[in-house]
Amino acid sequence: MSDFRSLHRAGAPLVLPNAWDVASARMLMRAGFPAVGTTSLGVAAANGLPDGQDATAADSLRLVRRIAGLGCHVSVDIERGSVGAAVAVAAAGAAGINVEDAMGPVERQVRLIRQVKREAPGLFVNARTDTHWQRAGEVGEALRRVRAYADAGADGVFVPGLRAPADIEAVVRGVGVPVNVLHEPCGPAVAELAALGVRRVSTGSLLFRVALAAAVGAAQAVRDGAPVDGAGLPTYAQIAASG
Amino acid sequence: MSDFRSLHRAGAPLVLPNAWDVASARMLMRAGFPAVGTTSLGVAAANGLPDGQDATAADSLRLVRRIAGLGCHVSVDIERGSVGAAVAVAAAGAAGINVEDAMGPVERQVRLIRQVKREAPGLFVNARTDTHWQRAGEVGEALRRVRAYADAGADGVFVPGLRAPADIEAVVRGVGVPVNVLHEPCGPAVAELAALGVRRVSTGSLLFRVALAAAVGAAQAVRDGAPVDGAGLPTYAQIAASG
Repeated sequence: MSDFRSLHRAGAPLVLPNAWDVASARMLMRAGFPAVGTTSLGVAAANGLPDGQDATAADSLRLVRRIAGLGCHVSVDIERGSVGAAVAVAAAGAAGINVEDAMGPVERQVRLIRQVKREAPGLFVNARTDTHWQRAGEVGEALRRVRAYADAGADGVFVPGLRAPADIEAVVRGVGVPVNVLHEPCGPAVAELAALGVRRVSTGSLLFRVALAAAVGAAQAVRDGAPVDGAGLPTYAQIAASG
Repeated sequence: MSDFRSLHRAGAPLVLPNAWDVASARMLMRAGFPAVGTTSLGVAAANGLPDGQDATAADSLRLVRRIAGLGCHVSVDIERGSVGAAVAVAAAGAAGINVEDAMGPVERQVRLIRQVKREAPGLFVNARTDTHWQRAGEVGEALRRVRAYADAGADGVFVPGLRAPADIEAVVRGVGVPVNVLHEPCGPAVAELAALGVRRVSTGSLLFRVALAAAVGAAQAVRDGAPVDGAGLPTYAQIAASG
């Protein structure tokens, strides 16, 4: 298995799909993705918990325990997180984590990143800032934050909601570590992001939401007598067998 | 909320979609289904467990605890099950259960059904026989089994894999309780099943498999630069808010 860090290549970014349970992780591995992330939104909703309030810690840990041995790198979304949560997922086999700043104090986040890198030096820490996610994007503020996080030891930085090519380029040029951008259906394609120097493209909650929409659509089709395309659906053996 | 039993109507069967986690259950409720089932295959695979070996008991119980209060009847697939598992899900708020015979001795199943109806008389016990699921369908054997289960107190009977209209009619005529048929993409539509007297149509693992296929398809599209249709995807508020 190649090193997780080396998958973040300039020109050929890591496309990191986000899973929410063991089955989605397994199926993504089967489809050839060398690494999967988790989505805290998906883990939260799948388990009936709120997102963004660090309520998914136990369920995310349970998930990484169940998928880390399957032969694929796993990067865990630990929300705002804590040193304890980072160390726990590292011990469970995670290759990396996402920690989000939720627009809180930069100093809190810098301290957290430093402590995590001290306690779990092998863990790829992807530091997310919510400048573009929670409010109208301010690329200067995004840059200020991700530089502080990279200086603190973050292995990569993540600015979900970053969309404008000039802003993406500015962030890529502004930090020395891999930049992660969230794929959005109406945003730039992976090839465009690659050309801008992005080294990781993740899918956030997109796959989870696509999955739910498809399930509900199929249920409505059954109810309404409309056809459901059963061709090519995964079999139990494909879903449940390892690798 | 109408009575779960009364939803099993001749001529207008209960279409019971099967959920595997809190989010899928919530979304199916939002789509107007008055009741949801669970799929043990989905619960097993979502949690990295085998199906058909009663390994999902704890996770199914956890699931019903988290969705039973949402304002929708829940029928829980307890696999081969036990009196204890049935009583536990009833106490957690389940309106019904599915118990499968896995082609084991009829007497074991009759004893189980009698005990469950004694311990949890309000629970709708849907007794499944695997005559058509595990082997080439033998309608005589199916009839012998479901009659024994109905005589033991089962509130409904379920023969997954039953497809031929004449066989469906034979089972409907042969027992006095509601007959449940599994919807299959290439099998009879709900209207045809209704005309044959079927009073419940469930979806088994179909929705779960549709969901996984859609998620993997979207991940591959992102990777390959193909369009992903983001229109109409559920928002976080829709997935996570109750009702």
